[in-house]
Amino acid sequence: MDKNEVIERILAGFNPSACGLPEDFILTKLTGAKGCGCKILLQLLENFNETKVVDNDEIGIGLDSCVVPLRHDGFKLVQTTDFFYPLVDDPYLMGRITVANVLSDLYAMGVTECDNMLMLLGVAADLDGKQRDVVIGQFIKGFKDAACCAGTKVRGGQTVKCPWLLLGGVGSAVVADSELRRVDAAQPGDVLLLTKPIGGQVAVNSYEWLKKKTGRVEELGLDEKRIVRAFQQVSEQMCRLNRNAARLLHTHNAHASTDVTGFGLLGHADNLARAQQKPVCFVIDNLPIIEYMDEIARKMPSGNGFNLFSGTSAETSGGLLIALKQEDAQNYIRDIAELDGFPAWIVGRVEEAMDGVCKAVIHKDFSVQTIPSRIHSG
Amino acid sequence: MDKNEVIERILAGFNPSACGLPEDFILTKLTGAKGCGCKILLQLLENFNETKVVDNDEIGIGLDSCVVPLRHDGFKLVQTTDFFYPLVDDPYLMGRITVANVLSDLYAMGVTECDNMLMLLGVAADLDGKQRDVVIGQFIKGFKDAACCAGTKVRGGQTVKCPWLLLGGVGSAVVADSELRRVDAAQPGDVLLLTKPIGGQVAVNSYEWLKKKTGRVEELGLDEKRIVRAFQQVSEQMCRLNRNAARLLHTHNAHASTDVTGFGLLGHADNLARAQQKPVCFVIDNLPIIEYMDEIARKMPSGNGFNLFSGTSAETSGGLLIALKQEDAQNYIRDIAELDGFPAWIVGRVEEAMDGVCKAVIHKDFSVQTIPSRIHSG
Repeated sequence: MDKNEVIERILAGFNPSACGLPEDFILTKLTGAKGCGCKILLQLLENFNETKVVDNDEIGIGLDSCVVPLRHDGFKLVQTTDFFYPLVDDPYLMGRITVANVLSDLYAMGVTECDNMLMLLGVAADLDGKQRDVVIGQFIKGFKDAACCAGTKVRGGQTVKCPWLLLGGVGSAVVADSELRRVDAAQPGDVLLLTKPIGGQVAVNSYEWLKKKTGRVEELGLDEKRIVRAFQQVSEQMCRLNRNAARLLHTHNAHASTDVTGFGLLGHADNLARAQQKPVCFVIDNLPIIEYMDEIARKMPSGNGFNLFSGTSAETSGGLLIALKQEDAQNYIRDIAELDGFPAWIVGRVEEAMDGVCKAVIHKDFSVQTIPSRIHSG
Repeated sequence: MDKNEVIERILAGFNPSACGLPEDFILTKLTGAKGCGCKILLQLLENFNETKVVDNDEIGIGLDSCVVPLRHDGFKLVQTTDFFYPLVDDPYLMGRITVANVLSDLYAMGVTECDNMLMLLGVAADLDGKQRDVVIGQFIKGFKDAACCAGTKVRGGQTVKCPWLLLGGVGSAVVADSELRRVDAAQPGDVLLLTKPIGGQVAVNSYEWLKKKTGRVEELGLDEKRIVRAFQQVSEQMCRLNRNAARLLHTHNAHASTDVTGFGLLGHADNLARAQQKPVCFVIDNLPIIEYMDEIARKMPSGNGFNLFSGTSAETSGGLLIALKQEDAQNYIRDIAELDGFPAWIVGRVEEAMDGVCKAVIHKDFSVQTIPSRIHSG
C-alpha cells in the first residue's frame, strides 16, 4: 500500500463491519490509556541511569535513541523502542503509526537506514477469537507495510496476553559515524524548524468525543465535520515516516534535531536544548497547529485545552524539530515539500543563554499559524 | 551483587515488609498470566513471516534470535526480545530473571557478548506510589545487576502504565561470523545435552499454591518444605545466565543448540530438530527434573501435571539444549560444572530420521533423573 492508498484509507474512514467486526467496535476502547501520554516513570528511570550523556560517544536514556560504540571499530549501534496504546480505530493504520513512531527516534539522529525491526504486541484479553484475528492481522499488515516503506524488515518480536491492547516495536541500525548526525551543535543565530504541525492530542481526543458520543462535542458547540477533517489530517501525519526529514538533516547541515512526541513541542525542545554543547536558549515564537485545533483548545474551560498553547500537548509520531542556519532552513523547507508533499515551518530561533542555562521557552508574544489539511479525496 | 549473594537472597526468601511493602504483598498477584506461558499468537505470527529460514544467512522468527546480515560487510546483528509477567515474588530477582531469560536467546546462538540491552516495563495501575517505587526500583536494580554480570549495559527502554505488571527486555549484539554458531548441523550419532533441569512450571505453581493458600497443597498432600526448596532451586537457575554454556558451545564444537523456555523441553527440541539440514530425529530418553517436581506431577489428577512427562511443561530462563559428539559432551559437562558450579546431563541422542521428517520425540521408555538442589545457606 503506497502513500496515496494510505490517504484514501484515511479519508474513507474505518468501517468495522466491512472487515467482520461488530458495527460498534471501537479499537481505542481496548485500553485505559492512550498514545504516548503515559510515561510515568521518567524520574525513576533517570535515577537509574546516572547521567544522560555518558560520554561524547555514548548517549544514554533521555535523547531519542541510544548510541552504542561497538567492539568492532568505526561502527555504532543505534537503537530505540517504544510501545503504547491505540489512538485511531483502524488497526491497519495503527500498525503504520507504530512503525513511524518507533523509527522517528532513529530519524531524529539522522539515521535513515533501519537494519531490523522487532514487533511488540500485547493482545487484549477482551477480544474474541474472530476479533483478535482481524485486529491483530490488520495491525501486523500495517506494521509490515510501513517497515517495507522504511526499507527495513520485521524479523522478530514477542506477543503476550494483556488486559489492554499494547502496540510497540524496536528499531535498530548499525551505522558508520558518517550516517549519524550530532544533535548537540546548535548555534546562536540558528532557526528552529518543525516538520509536522502540533495539535495531535486535541485532534485524537476530540474525535474520540465524537465517536464515543460523550456529549462533549455538543457541550463545547464543536463542528463535527471539522473534527473529522482534523482527525484525518493527524492520521496522515502520524503514518508519515520522518525518513525524508532525516535525509535532509545531512543535506542541509542540521546542527541539532529531535522528534516531537509525548512531551509536546516545548518538552522535546527543552530536552534538546539541555543536551547542547553551547549555552543556548531555544525560543519558540510560532506554533503551527492543525486547523481548528486551536479553536477547540480555546473553547475548553481552561482556554488552553490539553496545554496546547503551553507547548506540552502530546504528539504521537510528530515531526522533527531541527536547529540549523536560516539559509539552510529555506532550502530544507523547499526540499521537504518536494519529497513529502507537505510543508515545514520555522517555529523559533536559537539564542545565546544569557544565564548560561540551556533551556527552551515559548515566547510571550507567540503567534499561532493554522495549518489546513492537504489531503483530499479522489 | 555476585552469584553467592543472589543465592543468599533466594534462600532468605522475600520479605515484603522489610522493604516497605505490606506484609501480604504478593507480586505475582499483579497479573492474570504467568511467565512465558502466554504465547497465544504463534500461528498468526507464522503466517505473517512467510518462511522461518529466509535464506542461509538470515534466520527469521521461530528460532531463538533473529540474525540480520548488515550493510557493512562481515557483520551480523543478532537480536531478541521477550516480555512476560512476574513468576517470583522478589522484584529484584524478577529483574535478574528477565535479563537471563532475554539473553538466553543470544546465548543459544553462541553469542556471548551482548552490546546493548533495552528494558521494557508495564507498570501495574494497582500499585500505589510507594509500592511502585519499591517494586520498580528493585526490578530495575536486578535488571541492571544482571546486565552488568553479562558484561553489557542498559541504555534505553520504554515504560507504560498497564493493568498487569509487565517485564521485558531487548538484547542486541553485532557480531563477526566467527562469534555466531550455526545451530543447524546436528549429526546422527550426536548426543543431546541439557544444562538446567526441567520442572520450573511445577515449582513456580506449587509455590504459588502454598503462598496464596489455595488449598491445593493440602488436597494433594504435599510437603511444604520440599516445595520451598524446589522454588529456591528454580529461582537460582532462572537467575543463572547461560553465558558460560554459550562459551562452551564454541569450545566443544556444538552442532546445534537452542534454549528451553515456554514450549518446554520437547517443544524447543522439536523446533530445533525441524531447523536441521540433515534429516534427523531428536530422541529424548532421560528427563532431569528438579527434585520433588516429578512427585507433584504424579500426584496431580492426570498423573502428568503440567504435562511434565510429555516434555511440554513451560520453563522460564531454562537451560541450553545442545547436540554434539559424545566425547565433546563429556568435556562440556566437566567444564560447565567447573565454570558454573552446576551439572549438565545427557538427555537423549540424535538419530537419522527414517521417514525424512525432522522432529523430536520422548522415547516411550524414558527415565526420570531427580536433580537435588545444590544451593545451601551459609
